Amino acid sequence: MRRLTLSLGEHSYPILIGGSLLARADLIQPFLRTPRIALVSNTTVAPFYMEFIVGGLEKVGVGVTPIILPDGEAHKNWESLNLIYDALLAARCDRSTTVVALGGGVIGDLAGFAAATYQRGVPFIQIPTTLLSQVDSSVGGKTGINHPRGKNMVGAFWQPKLVLADTDTLQTLPARELSAGMAEVIKYGLIRDLPFLEWLEANMAGLLARDGELLAQAIERSCANKAEVVAADEFETAKEGGRALLNLGHTFGHAIETGMGYGEWLHGEAVAAGTMMAVELSHRLGWLSAAEVERVRTLMLRAGLPVTGPDLGVARYLELMSHDKKVIAGSLRLILLKGMGQAVTCADAPGADIAAAIESCCRA
Amino acid sequence: MRRLTLSLGEHSYPILIGGSLLARADLIQPFLRTPRIALVSNTTVAPFYMEFIVGGLEKVGVGVTPIILPDGEAHKNWESLNLIYDALLAARCDRSTTVVALGGGVIGDLAGFAAATYQRGVPFIQIPTTLLSQVDSSVGGKTGINHPRGKNMVGAFWQPKLVLADTDTLQTLPARELSAGMAEVIKYGLIRDLPFLEWLEANMAGLLARDGELLAQAIERSCANKAEVVAADEFETAKEGGRALLNLGHTFGHAIETGMGYGEWLHGEAVAAGTMMAVELSHRLGWLSAAEVERVRTLMLRAGLPVTGPDLGVARYLELMSHDKKVIAGSLRLILLKGMGQAVTCADAPGADIAAAIESCCRA
Repeated sequence: MRRLTLSLGEHSYPILIGGSLLARADLIQPFLRTPRIALVSNTTVAPFYMEFIVGGLEKVGVGVTPIILPDGEAHKNWESLNLIYDALLAARCDRSTTVVALGGGVIGDLAGFAAATYQRGVPFIQIPTTLLSQVDSSVGGKTGINHPRGKNMVGAFWQPKLVLADTDTLQTLPARELSAGMAEVIKYGLIRDLPFLEWLEANMAGLLARDGELLAQAIERSCANKAEVVAADEFETAKEGGRALLNLGHTFGHAIETGMGYGEWLHGEAVAAGTMMAVELSHRLGWLSAAEVERVRTLMLRAGLPVTGPDLGVARYLELMSHDKKVIAGSLRLILLKGMGQAVTCADAPGADIAAAIESCCRA
Repeated sequence: MRRLTLSLGEHSYPILIGGSLLARADLIQPFLRTPRIALVSNTTVAPFYMEFIVGGLEKVGVGVTPIILPDGEAHKNWESLNLIYDALLAARCDRSTTVVALGGGVIGDLAGFAAATYQRGVPFIQIPTTLLSQVDSSVGGKTGINHPRGKNMVGAFWQPKLVLADTDTLQTLPARELSAGMAEVIKYGLIRDLPFLEWLEANMAGLLARDGELLAQAIERSCANKAEVVAADEFETAKEGGRALLNLGHTFGHAIETGMGYGEWLHGEAVAAGTMMAVELSHRLGWLSAAEVERVRTLMLRAGLPVTGPDLGVARYLELMSHDKKVIAGSLRLILLKGMGQAVTCADAPGADIAAAIESCCRA
């Protein structure tokens, strides 16, 4: 088992990564305030893992209230959140009850936001079961739901007490989802860890073949990168760089997700296409060579990811992007690459270049 | 103008109290991150004060997005919250936009929770216009909405950057609401400030006659008490005493509010009747004399407040109280008085005494 720490003073927490961790109640129990949890999962994940976890916890005297939601990004909304509140109240869960998320990014974001807001905040634990959630969304405390006008528009920062990433869960993950997670893994290489990008280029075939040891290494390296960034800028308030850099490709990507309707594109797929737009724009600004753009495109394609976005039209992209949370005082801030492995915040990219970058990365 | 500070390290903020403050854009402007606010109010308050505030702010170049909600506790729910989100998104408010609450406790709780959760948190300012919100709910960062199963069950701690209490607004406040606010004022005397209780007994007639100077004194003393308690226990996590003591009468009171349907009883009215139940229970436990119970009852009556609750039946009271947020690991914690001016947390009051206290304070 690999162990990292996200350092946030008294709110620091461990990230445990490895195989056969799900049934290990001994890993979870020390983090509970009282022997009582609400286990939030979805109809896809619960049949695989719920029994293991509940069995292990009940054996050591932990009471479990299961809360099973419908699966998918389309359900990351108020209705699902309310199902969690209703279940917590019906089971008389109080402020000492720990909410545990068992599932992918949608479940983590929903359960986390419920934990942040139920009775003004209860303890929270993340048990991510997809590559994307293991390398990204379960770490760092971002929680929330979507709004018809924009992704993650309603939410809170609420750090978990523990992140438990069992790599065994990746063996049953659909190939499309494995690839989607890889988009966020590649992101860390692109924004701040060139040696990791090279390692990914060397090991992509083994990763997609689900070599457990390689996956564990990729997750650890991804989480280590994320933990460093989050520890330095927990609330994404840094004026330059900081946590916002983790959003490479996300402003374009969110436009794709919102424009297509939540759930049509997987988040990671939208990030991959969005990253190509950011990379293309970086090239137009003279920061990346054509060969470097091609290098990124090749890796995305090898990871089974889309490298073009849907043809929404440039105007619609720009309209959707203008709702981005990184907009400050009306000005759009994009995450671009000054070079491979070196992301920057850019508030003054010319509109014509942004439009051209989008256009060149859209499928007809 | 009177000025207090709520000391919370780098999140400390001023509480300004006095007359003719509403049009003083110079008091608000220094606390804005960008010259852009969303002003949340309701259909009752907005016609009185919106114009003053908007006029003052626009003169100094601050852009204002007005958001007007229906009035009343019955609207402290998800639907109203969503109206705020919709308006913020439609006006393209970003993370630097300050949400300003102009109204009573409901508006403050709703706007505060919207500020806590819009794009994972934006700056917030409180401009309370009722006695209750000026002495209690605008200070301390509690925000939230009601759930059909319980009051304030969904919410967050989100501190304002500034609280601006204009005592002029109390001149147009309905008498019933002035009295309701007085319940929370009396509370501070009962739980921790006996000299203030005596001052209230001496000045209740003048306060109800809306003597501006007396009202300003009462608000300042109330806020000073609240600020001390909150500074010592921001998140209500103290095992003994602490912030929970501010909830004298509230567990019984919330049962009344929920049991009658939100809006039937004003919050302060429910707190007054609930306080009498807590006082009666304290008497049954041998902590208060019959004369002291009578002393509290007399003051409540002089303040125009109810001293008995609705006859919901004891079983229903207990059922509703079991959902209280102060329940930890299934055990109900009540705030009672060990003596006048001295509140304590009590987790082991005998059920029979609780039932008898409720029964003796219910109208047939």
